[in-house]
Formats: sequence, structure tokens, C-alpha cells
Amino acid sequence: MDLEFISKLIKHTDTKIVMLVMDGIGGLPRETDNKTELEAAYKPNLDKLANNGICGLHLPVGHGITPGSGPGHLGIFGFDTKKYQIGRGTLEALGIDFDLKPGDIAARGNFCTIDKDGKITDRRAGRISTEKNQEICKLLGERIRIPGVKVFVETVKEHRLLIVLRGTGLKGNLIDTDPQEIGAKSLEPKGGPGSEKTVEIVKNFLKQTKDILSNHHPANMVLLRGFSEKPNWPIFPEVFGLKSAAIAAYPMYRGLARLIGMDLLETGQTIEEEFKTLEENWDNYDFFFLHIKKTDSYGEDGNFDSKVKVIEQVDGLIPRLMRLNPDVIIVTGDHSTPSVLKSHSWHPVPLLIWSKYCRADNVKEFGERACITGGLGPNLPAIEILPIAMANAQRLEKFGA
Amino acid sequence: MDLEFISKLIKHTDTKIVMLVMDGIGGLPRETDNKTELEAAYKPNLDKLANNGICGLHLPVGHGITPGSGPGHLGIFGFDTKKYQIGRGTLEALGIDFDLKPGDIAARGNFCTIDKDGKITDRRAGRISTEKNQEICKLLGERIRIPGVKVFVETVKEHRLLIVLRGTGLKGNLIDTDPQEIGAKSLEPKGGPGSEKTVEIVKNFLKQTKDILSNHHPANMVLLRGFSEKPNWPIFPEVFGLKSAAIAAYPMYRGLARLIGMDLLETGQTIEEEFKTLEENWDNYDFFFLHIKKTDSYGEDGNFDSKVKVIEQVDGLIPRLMRLNPDVIIVTGDHSTPSVLKSHSWHPVPLLIWSKYCRADNVKEFGERACITGGLGPNLPAIEILPIAMANAQRLEKFGA
Repeated sequence: MDLEFISKLIKHTDTKIVMLVMDGIGGLPRETDNKTELEAAYKPNLDKLANNGICGLHLPVGHGITPGSGPGHLGIFGFDTKKYQIGRGTLEALGIDFDLKPGDIAARGNFCTIDKDGKITDRRAGRISTEKNQEICKLLGERIRIPGVKVFVETVKEHRLLIVLRGTGLKGNLIDTDPQEIGAKSLEPKGGPGSEKTVEIVKNFLKQTKDILSNHHPANMVLLRGFSEKPNWPIFPEVFGLKSAAIAAYPMYRGLARLIGMDLLETGQTIEEEFKTLEENWDNYDFFFLHIKKTDSYGEDGNFDSKVKVIEQVDGLIPRLMRLNPDVIIVTGDHSTPSVLKSHSWHPVPLLIWSKYCRADNVKEFGERACITGGLGPNLPAIEILPIAMANAQRLEKFGA
Repeated sequence: MDLEFISKLIKHTDTKIVMLVMDGIGGLPRETDNKTELEAAYKPNLDKLANNGICGLHLPVGHGITPGSGPGHLGIFGFDTKKYQIGRGTLEALGIDFDLKPGDIAARGNFCTIDKDGKITDRRAGRISTEKNQEICKLLGERIRIPGVKVFVETVKEHRLLIVLRGTGLKGNLIDTDPQEIGAKSLEPKGGPGSEKTVEIVKNFLKQTKDILSNHHPANMVLLRGFSEKPNWPIFPEVFGLKSAAIAAYPMYRGLARLIGMDLLETGQTIEEEFKTLEENWDNYDFFFLHIKKTDSYGEDGNFDSKVKVIEQVDGLIPRLMRLNPDVIIVTGDHSTPSVLKSHSWHPVPLLIWSKYCRADNVKEFGERACITGGLGPNLPAIEILPIAMANAQRLEKFGA
């Protein structure tokens, strides 16, 4: 259901919704016993939730489509992932949890090496260390001055950096200056309609950068890609009428939550600390996005057993969640990350929604195959999760008389 | 998922996909034992594929819609059948495997009988024999001359023929000349915007035809219907990045495959010969469309037992398919043709997709009712089959980062 339709039906009550996202939770069966990670895990508490809840599998983007973290999360937050696409520069900003403001222009950057004629000899400046990167970014940030514009030069990792331009009347419709080719020169900044001012600023930025870095071989120039404006999207707490908080240890997910207007809660690096943050902030919000990263990381590593252990660890913390007496619990992932594939995949993602009024189905267990016959079906579009949760929280008015 | 979206995610690998289409495979239970044709068939190999694969039923066009062969196949090839509609003239050309070129205008024709005042006395010219039809078509093809245009006059069957106009600047937006009424005169050619040139050509064609056939009573005139241009559609091998071959014994299916750019492989009339063609061409293609006609023909005849036997024959050839070591196998039909109804029907069509990474569901058997609880769901839109198969073949990039 589209956000505009839903937002007209919002009703305010004091119910609370928890969305527990185990990143990349969906899996594939291992050879030894034909069980997926979820099926192999000992998880009595999640199974009990499934037993008392309504289950299914959701499709983050569409059939056959493997989602990145951006679309994967936007889908379960109710945003149509084909309509709301994040520019590469913006995504890089989210990845380091940079607080983009409306009108900001972000671009991904590479430190590179150029010769005396300006020709690129190494597009990654010999993959300089992150420490070296930080040193140069600091230097550029201190020295570059462009009238009327604030320039942020932020380290990402190794040779990668983020540039953010903050000012008025800036546009993100610029082409890359990175020719993606050794021996070529960096491309002149160019852009589409209305981009003249931004093009001049980027030219100025690159000229100053070249001067400042002239003695910093191998990182003596910067190539820019994926210019994009901070998207002007609907705000999650406004659309759904939910005072919303994100509990996430990793910057990308904090960035995504911030992009759609959730509050970010300070938390630790462990799952236990994340649950503690939930408890401590329980009275202050209507909606909690609780993000567990390690299911995905171990999936990407092909580490079946460790992914299972993370699921079991989360399961062990479910009683603490239940003691908070939430009205609606959503347990799912943003996509599948089968250990067998060591990567994100297109497979539908196990989903359970629990509430007092969910109309429990016959699914007794939280697993890929058990969920197929659940009441939410084997292919629920991800954007339908929030409306269902909202209904279960009795936060949606009747449509029509 | 729409073709444009998918085509942006295409990745090239050396995996192979086989789409085995048993035309009209879906059925209805017979009275004696309440089994459908698929359920009654002894088919251990297809059941094994279902057991190790992911199953469901697909909807070729939509709920309640009985598809013709055109939309039935276009759907499973990933084309939105409401957007990509084939004109009647074009369909007639496909039906005799006429090689339409871009810009060609095709129309269906009937030989008819007119009296001396030009009034139609028999719209089908006494259903002349196909041999007679061939004789007259040859005569017309040899004698009709229109400057700047090549005219093809092709026999279809009995009183039915195909006219194709090949030239530049032709349009298909002409109304029928067939008044569909005895005692009326053939209608004057007329058309929409930009059709002036084509209208003059058709007038010229009909004038010459009338002169040439004046002594050929009862087939002394031609009525034209369903003018249409060769559609300018996306090319299947380009959209999906698959070198694609069609193995089909019947002209209509060869025509459909050719229309979307598949290569046509020479094959025989038997199913065994079709499998042989598959084996012989295995190394040269990424995608094979293997079409079995007889399931539909026997369904149309109301011959339950023979439809069962065709399924059993296909089943017996599955081990030869498996020995080729395909990466992805799709087994389905283009629509249902229940013997009980002796016609195409609206019922969803059994579907199985097998691959190493398909995430097998709990379906143990390939049948209408067994597939309902499969992971692909009971109502998968047909256009989603190809994206899922492409994902299983690891031929789709991640969407978003």
C-alpha cells in the first residue's frame, strides 16, 4: 500500500511496535542435514512467537531481485524501493553515518595518482591506508575554502572518501569526474539543467584539491562519482504517526534510519547492549527499529554455524522483549544472505508478526519452509509489512464508511 | 517485474536455463478418481524435480482470464501480456511461421464469393480445399504487382489466407474490409492517421485481386481483417542477456519465439526428436524454450488418457535433460487445457523451478493441488518466472547497494 494512502488513515493510540530486523536472516539448506540457518537454530522463543503469530515470507524488492541494504531496509519500512532509490553519493554518506541536511550534495571520492600531465596512473592511489586517508581529508577540510559553501571531506576507508557540499541552490545532477580508465585525465565537471553553480563549485574544489595535494604523491588528486542530493522523501514518523527510534550498531543502518527521520539511540556493539537500549528507551517511543547485523556478516562469510549462534543469541533475548509488553512484534530480515552463497540473495525472507489480534495461522516454527504456508503468504511485498503492523497496533482508521 | 528493470541488472555467466513448456498442462479432475491429468500420470522424474525444486502455480494473464497461445507464451517469457498484445494479422503470420520483418503489415484474409453486383453471398467461398487455396494464392502472388511494395499471399488453411505488405512508410491502423455480413459489399479500405499510402495499396491489391479471380467462382474475392504491423518489441535474448533457442514442432510457437528474437532450431515432429535437438545444440545456447504441443491438443480433444500418456512420455525423457547438467529447469505450461472442458481455461498453471539454489519447498509431487502450497505460491504472475529463473542462474546483479 502506498504511503499516501496509509498516511490518511493514521490514528494515534499508545500502542508500541517493535521491528526486529535480523539482517540477511533468510538462508539456504546446508548439505549435511538439509536445514537452513534458521531451521538449524535452537530458538524456542522465536518459535513460540511464530506459533502465536502470523507468518509468511516477504519479497524485499520483487521476484528474483537481490536487494542491497538500502532497498532491503526501505522496503520493510514501507517505502516502494523502485520509487525511492538512493543515489550512490548519498549511500556513501549513510555508510559513515554522515548527517546529511536537506539540499546537501554528496559524492563518492577516490584518492588517485596523476602524473605531471594530469593523466591518471592509479585510480586508487596505491590503496593508501585509512590513517593516511584521514590525514589528507583533515588537510583538505581545513584548507579548502569556497565562498558561500561549506565543504565536508570525510574519510570512508583506504582510498575512498566522501565529499559533501552544503549551500543554497545546489544540484546533484552532475556526471562523474572519474573516467574509470588509467591513462585518461580526470573529466571536467559537467551537469544537467540548473547545475551551473554546482559545476563551478566542484571545479573550484578540484582545483584547490590539486594544488593542496601536489606534494602528496601517491594520493595527489581526487576522482568524484555518484553526485546526488539528499533525497526529499516522506518522513517515516510523520507518514505512520509513530515516534520512532533506531537501535543499530552499524553506521549504514543508522544512516538509513536517519534518512527517513527516525531518532538514533546511542547503543553498544553487542546484541545484548542493543536490547538494553531498547529497555532504557521503552517509554519514549512508539516504534523501535532494532537492527542485528551479525546474521548478515556471518552469512557473507559463509559461516553457517556462527549465523546459527547469532540467531540463538537473539532468541535468548526475546523474553526481555516480551517483558516490555509490546503490542506488535515484527521479526524479519531486510533480505536473505544464505551462508551457502556467501552473499545477499533473491530468496523471500521469513517474516512473523505477533500481536494480540494477529489471527495466528498454523505455522509452529520460524523457518523458511515453515513460513511458506503461513497466513501472510510466501511472497508478501515488503511494503505491506508496516500497514499490517499498524493495523495490529490498532493505529489505522477504517477506510470508507 | 518489468523488462526494463530486469534488463538493467543482467549479468553474464555461463549458466544454462531450460524452459520446458507442456502446452495446456493444467487440468481438472476426472470423475472416476478425482485426479487431474498431471495427478493421474506416472511421472517419477517430474515428481523428483518437484521434490527438489520450488513449486507453485502461475497466472498467465490474470485471475479468471483464459489465455490464447500468444499471451500464454508471452507471459512465461516475461512479457506483460496486457502491454504486449499481438495484432490478429501478425498472429496469423506467426501461425504459419511466416518470417515477418520490421515494418511489415499483415492481415488475415478469407476467400469469399461475391455476386455480379459485388455483394457477398458466401463469406468462406464454400470452404474451398487447402489445395485450391494454395493454387489461387500462387496465382495472386505471381500476378499482383504494386509499385514499391512486395506483396505476399500465403495459404493458411481452407478459405483462410495471409496477406503481408512489405515496403516503407506502411501503417497497420486500417479497419477490416470484411463486413462480416452476407448480402453486404466488401468495405472500402480506410485507416487512421498516416495510413493514406497503405489504404491506396490495399485498394490497389483488392482491385487486382477482383480482376484476377473474376473467373474463379466460388473463390472470386478476398475479405481482409486484423491489419497489424509487426510489433517493435524488446528482444528476449537482449533483455535477458541469454543466447536463446526455441525447439518447437508447431509453426505458431516457432512464430512466437521468432517474434521475440529467439533462434529457431530445426527439429522433428516427435517429443523424442525435440529432446535430441536439445542435446545436439546444448553447447550453443544459454536458454532453451522446449515446446510440447500434444498435451494441449489432447486436452482440446477431451482425451484425458492420451494427455496423461504425453506427460508420461515427457517424464521418461527428463533423465536425458538431467544428463546435460542444466543449471536451471523450469517446467510449466502456457495455460491450462483441462480435458474435461475441451478448451483452454483460466486455471492457474502448475510450475516448478529447479536449481541448486532454488530453496526447495515441501512439495513432493508435480500436480495442481500439490503445487498450491509451494514456495512460489498458488497465483504467481507468469511474468515473474523468468526473473526467478535468472536469479537462480545467478545472472542478475544486486539492486542497490
